[in-house]
Amino acid sequence: MPNQTVKKVVLAYSGGLDTSVILKWLQETYGCEVVTFTADIGQGEELEPARAKAQALGIKEIYIDDLKEEFARDFVFPMFRANAIYEGEYLLGTSIARPLIAKRLIEITRETGADAIAHGATGKGNDQVRFELGAYALRPDIKIIAPWREWDLNSREKLLAYAERHGIPIEMKRGKASPYSMDANLLHISYEGGILEDPWAEPEEDMWRWTVSPEKAPDKPTYVELSYERGDIVAVDGERLTPAQVLAKLNRLGGENGIGRLDIVENRYVGMKSRGCYETPGGTIMLRAHRAIESLTLDREVAHLKDELMPRYASLIYNGYWWSPERLMLQELIDASQATVNGEVKVKLYKGNVTIVGRKSENNSLFDMNIATFEDDRGAYNQKDAEGFIKLNALRMRIAAQKGLKFV
Amino acid sequence: MPNQTVKKVVLAYSGGLDTSVILKWLQETYGCEVVTFTADIGQGEELEPARAKAQALGIKEIYIDDLKEEFARDFVFPMFRANAIYEGEYLLGTSIARPLIAKRLIEITRETGADAIAHGATGKGNDQVRFELGAYALRPDIKIIAPWREWDLNSREKLLAYAERHGIPIEMKRGKASPYSMDANLLHISYEGGILEDPWAEPEEDMWRWTVSPEKAPDKPTYVELSYERGDIVAVDGERLTPAQVLAKLNRLGGENGIGRLDIVENRYVGMKSRGCYETPGGTIMLRAHRAIESLTLDREVAHLKDELMPRYASLIYNGYWWSPERLMLQELIDASQATVNGEVKVKLYKGNVTIVGRKSENNSLFDMNIATFEDDRGAYNQKDAEGFIKLNALRMRIAAQKGLKFV
Amino acid sequence: MPNQTVKKVVLAYSGGLDTSVILKWLQETYGCEVVTFTADIGQGEELEPARAKAQALGIKEIYIDDLKEEFARDFVFPMFRANAIYEGEYLLGTSIARPLIAKRLIEITRETGADAIAHGATGKGNDQVRFELGAYALRPDIKIIAPWREWDLNSREKLLAYAERHGIPIEMKRGKASPYSMDANLLHISYEGGILEDPWAEPEEDMWRWTVSPEKAPDKPTYVELSYERGDIVAVDGERLTPAQVLAKLNRLGGENGIGRLDIVENRYVGMKSRGCYETPGGTIMLRAHRAIESLTLDREVAHLKDELMPRYASLIYNGYWWSPERLMLQELIDASQATVNGEVKVKLYKGNVTIVGRKSENNSLFDMNIATFEDDRGAYNQKDAEGFIKLNALRMRIAAQKGLKFV
Amino acid sequence: MPNQTVKKVVLAYSGGLDTSVILKWLQETYGCEVVTFTADIGQGEELEPARAKAQALGIKEIYIDDLKEEFARDFVFPMFRANAIYEGEYLLGTSIARPLIAKRLIEITRETGADAIAHGATGKGNDQVRFELGAYALRPDIKIIAPWREWDLNSREKLLAYAERHGIPIEMKRGKASPYSMDANLLHISYEGGILEDPWAEPEEDMWRWTVSPEKAPDKPTYVELSYERGDIVAVDGERLTPAQVLAKLNRLGGENGIGRLDIVENRYVGMKSRGCYETPGGTIMLRAHRAIESLTLDREVAHLKDELMPRYASLIYNGYWWSPERLMLQELIDASQATVNGEVKVKLYKGNVTIVGRKSENNSLFDMNIATFEDDRGAYNQKDAEGFIKLNALRMRIAAQKGLKFV
Repeated sequence: MPNQTVKKVVLAYSGGLDTSVILKWLQETYGCEVVTFTADIGQGEELEPARAKAQALGIKEIYIDDLKEEFARDFVFPMFRANAIYEGEYLLGTSIARPLIAKRLIEITRETGADAIAHGATGKGNDQVRFELGAYALRPDIKIIAPWREWDLNSREKLLAYAERHGIPIEMKRGKASPYSMDANLLHISYEGGILEDPWAEPEEDMWRWTVSPEKAPDKPTYVELSYERGDIVAVDGERLTPAQVLAKLNRLGGENGIGRLDIVENRYVGMKSRGCYETPGGTIMLRAHRAIESLTLDREVAHLKDELMPRYASLIYNGYWWSPERLMLQELIDASQATVNGEVKVKLYKGNVTIVGRKSENNSLFDMNIATFEDDRGAYNQKDAEGFIKLNALRMRIAAQKGLKFV
Repeated sequence: MPNQTVKKVVLAYSGGLDTSVILKWLQETYGCEVVTFTADIGQGEELEPARAKAQALGIKEIYIDDLKEEFARDFVFPMFRANAIYEGEYLLGTSIARPLIAKRLIEITRETGADAIAHGATGKGNDQVRFELGAYALRPDIKIIAPWREWDLNSREKLLAYAERHGIPIEMKRGKASPYSMDANLLHISYEGGILEDPWAEPEEDMWRWTVSPEKAPDKPTYVELSYERGDIVAVDGERLTPAQVLAKLNRLGGENGIGRLDIVENRYVGMKSRGCYETPGGTIMLRAHRAIESLTLDREVAHLKDELMPRYASLIYNGYWWSPERLMLQELIDASQATVNGEVKVKLYKGNVTIVGRKSENNSLFDMNIATFEDDRGAYNQKDAEGFIKLNALRMRIAAQKGLKFV
Repeated sequence: MPNQTVKKVVLAYSGGLDTSVILKWLQETYGCEVVTFTADIGQGEELEPARAKAQALGIKEIYIDDLKEEFARDFVFPMFRANAIYEGEYLLGTSIARPLIAKRLIEITRETGADAIAHGATGKGNDQVRFELGAYALRPDIKIIAPWREWDLNSREKLLAYAERHGIPIEMKRGKASPYSMDANLLHISYEGGILEDPWAEPEEDMWRWTVSPEKAPDKPTYVELSYERGDIVAVDGERLTPAQVLAKLNRLGGENGIGRLDIVENRYVGMKSRGCYETPGGTIMLRAHRAIESLTLDREVAHLKDELMPRYASLIYNGYWWSPERLMLQELIDASQATVNGEVKVKLYKGNVTIVGRKSENNSLFDMNIATFEDDRGAYNQKDAEGFIKLNALRMRIAAQKGLKFV
Repeated sequence: MPNQTVKKVVLAYSGGLDTSVILKWLQETYGCEVVTFTADIGQGEELEPARAKAQALGIKEIYIDDLKEEFARDFVFPMFRANAIYEGEYLLGTSIARPLIAKRLIEITRETGADAIAHGATGKGNDQVRFELGAYALRPDIKIIAPWREWDLNSREKLLAYAERHGIPIEMKRGKASPYSMDANLLHISYEGGILEDPWAEPEEDMWRWTVSPEKAPDKPTYVELSYERGDIVAVDGERLTPAQVLAKLNRLGGENGIGRLDIVENRYVGMKSRGCYETPGGTIMLRAHRAIESLTLDREVAHLKDELMPRYASLIYNGYWWSPERLMLQELIDASQATVNGEVKVKLYKGNVTIVGRKSENNSLFDMNIATFEDDRGAYNQKDAEGFIKLNALRMRIAAQKGLKFV
């Protein structure tokens, strides 16, 4: 028995078994009209089959949107301006896609006169939080249906039985079913479950899909030159590209060179630790390269301020607060900091390694080996100044030491 | 003319040309007695020649100390408990050695009745600050002589001429002189100057001394298992080792596998940017592995608190504030957090890559895929709880949205 | 129908109407044995009537504990070492009492073999969170009953009807019932509800119970001298007192002088804003005085570190995370900082004003107007040093300005 | 002998003895042309006498500017949007005026073709840093003359002798000379020196100039209503005022009611502690009132983010970094947060007390006692949601407790 009345629901629909079962279950349980929404955010799957399946299940309003450019431009790129990493390792590949899906779901509720949304995320993960916080922030009166938290189809067997019972086709994708739960978009692909549930077990080589192993990567390095404007990559090797094209190109280059694999235990917002493996080839290059161009063009204290705020910013995205006012405020600061982040970075890719081998900025470099002369009679830097600098910085500690104070 | 009266000065003496000239210059300029102090902190050079040279220059009190264990145990290891990285990249290899030298210099002033110390760091760098802040914090009435800020021997030619004039032997080390300014200790070796002064220029392969290039590293990976107690590595591949032995072993393993090279532009405390290259083979392994054992054993909020404090902690060390009360306070928090950081990490080393392939902790793992059952009638995790969790977390944003508020 | 099976429950019992109804309701609904726990944490009410009432309701195991000293010593005092204020104003008077109640409830479950606790906090407030987070942290398998979230007695009328139906005596306390919801302990008394629900309405004078108005306070100031050891007040006007005695004395002095009233809108952890009025006479004095003794005895950077961490520490307490590992870690840092916080503060109390009029510390003052001479030939402070200090601190900005960079 | 060559210098000139001596000393020592700059920033002194004196000393280019509105609008008001307080107490009255003076000095160097500036701040204080960091940031090649760090006129007697020798008139202002060093502007007046050098000594009543004592303030409270737009006060009691008029009016109201006295020991940026007394009547009202309007209109997490950043922001201003890129970035975030900070605050002023007695916001209040109904069938707040909220927030602590982990 549904716990609320719903007239029309927009379902985030992949076309796969789970969301097809959800589609049917929504029709049955809520007796409401269902609108499907399928997005291309670079996951690398055909979307037209989703349309056919939705039609076969009787759906009249079917949205299939190519959101790759919006995803790269308005979500991935702003996040990389912050050098965001969650818990020292994770590049937030799944997290950053969710607020875009939430936003589009809400837009479609408005376009179709729907009063609810539904999604296929489980009750144990972060994604439910990210979808729902985004949706509530953008439309506070929205109703949300999260079937995994409601139904009793909580096993593979029950799902399959339900599908069979309702004539939902069950295809065997890619020969045999993957033992892993996966998620992909233009920024990354993730793996959970299966043998990964033992954090002492090394993932099997054939799990990885986007990158060759460093062992199998070419024996010759690839050099690539990235051009930045206001903190964003605008050209690769001199060729001007859109944000989505940048990501696609760097994914290809990174993937070929064994770059971007990650295997971590992370802390979910809902309270437990989980083990995940990720491939983020382009993002791994972007993070190192962005730090490199900032190292030349960003003021020291601005860089340090960004570094101190970064963990909080990354947590906000991980936890689903992209559309929160505090993320927006932080973004104002971060974006303002990028005004001078212009120039080029040269990167060497080789068997899993991303090595910065050069960085320059014609108009915004703050690097000056000679500490340029500001004045006629002597340079800007007088070594004797260091004595006063040190003396005054030491003063508080000298006073304390003279009084014999011990601090711990 | 010296700017202060000094009776006896303890000189941080390497035995090289620069500090030998300083030694002589101190005798001449200050007319004071000189005590030499040479430390083995793992830089990989013979120290006995320094003794012979000091004797030849008429020094009576010569200190030559093996500080490797103290360095690893009391400085490097505590710093790695914090996952300290400066500006997203630098492992603080030079920075962390300076407070130990400062401490020992001050101890020797007390043992020898000296009233001053002297060092060979220039007036443009960070090391002068690190030596002097440490010295002032530990002995507030100490006099400090920094010849590079005082004398006019500020060129290679003048130094050599002075050496010749005073009969100081000038050896050509290692065939030809390196074009780089280098510094080494058990944690790292650094390179500055020469062609590195152009941040667009890639370092030449023959600059690197501690690591083979990823290209030349073995084609087979090396697996290594690290055992942790309270956040410190206590055994490698099951063999119990002292801190200095851990560092030495990981340096060897890392160096053989092309691990730990770094090429960055960094922001000096004295205000300018500089380009530096570093090899930190063991430290690079330690950082990744420590994060891995923490990922399993550290509470989420403690881990995040550490991440937010880390940039500040790293800056304190970079800027020379090891002996400051604020670093000591932060260390209290960090060390307290490590009580549960016990267990094993399995690492794969391959051509520049450090890959975590397993982590476990018999008594302190907080990872539990099943979210263990605390109660008779149901598990600790009820998926339905997520709805309330999300609803309350969304509430403030829903209220704002309902009122139509726009935040930016 | 209860949503879990409970054998014996420990109820936080005030003896008032609400918790008496809860007592009965627990017996009826859960059919379980009830243990009552009533604590004296300085709320200023007789506890023996609670015993009588519990006995009348058939309770066998009745705990009545005087926790005033534990409350002051282990909760209030550590919190004041941090100068904790929530949202710039609130002294956390209610928040800090909850973790103690949670701890004692759990202890009693262990002493009595109970498997559950129950409390009378509603589902809209912070207190439920504070009780339950504490309880779960201290006993993860504890069952928790929060009747206000379960039952349908959610109005005054229904409660009274239930009481009448079950023979629970309804006394009219203090002539007529207060229109405010109140909570009191040794640190403060709070008021919510009634006309306060309009944030534009000024509270009526007769609402306040612990303080006279500034208008009615004496026309002569009261001077009081506080003695500190390691950040805690150990004597008032030279008389050595226990922590609870300190609070009681300062409450009396503050209350007589119209000190410690507060009227704010605050953000609850559960997501909404609420209006609250508070009287914290002693705490208001303690906060100002503690800052004053720290101003003399704490290193600048330690003080600033504490100031930056304080809002997070205060939020942890407000949100109920007293027993969390992150609060414990922060406390390590805070307590370590207090080693030098020893000395005396002289305070003037006058018609609502707490004015610091003197502070001294025989052994730990870092204040020195002359900047004592460390050396023979000149003082520790040479005005010329300031030039170098400024020059190097300005360097990064000069370089940027010379390049014509604009930052915003 | 001057340590640099100067052609024309702009002197921050008050017309008082000290800067008159400096004027003469600059002419004599540097043999350069002197331009005087005297600003009205609300210090409450006649400026025309400064013109006459400058003329008498032979100055041709005399700048006398009324900067009150610019000071209030572009410096004081932006700072109050951040609720800035240094070290928990100080409202930064002196600090915030310095960057404006620095800016105007540099503008005048450009207007007059000067190559240097000079100021009368000593080498032991913060003001030299604030003037000079600002000047360097705005014109990196500027030469700066700080006579107090250069000359030997470092005593009252020597100054007077110099003045007499050079025919500089010495007036006895206000009967007898004040024993205190004072500084005033539209935001505050400060006192240092004299008996204040003993931090145990209470200031004498006749030191205070802008406020009556609480004892002498009226026996009747004054109520005042403040109107906010984007975080700034735009009207007082319904009367629309400019920023400078707001400050002037609140200073008068505060001063009459004994509001805004402060007596603290603070930590100077140059390393020592100092004792200062301050009167900030209007600012004291503004801080409380701004927090009150924010309490109603600011999102919780934005408010907390601001609170965590505030100490750093305040330190930046105190230390003289107003013109730094990091202050500018923080200001972006702070200003963005104020979009919703609109409404009214009612304040009661009485004998030193600033009491908030009401706050409202027609369009931006986030306060809603009923937690408005978003949906047809139930309100936005369901008390049962709290259980899930608490359960998931407790989960990490429950897991740790179940494993028996102790954190400290």
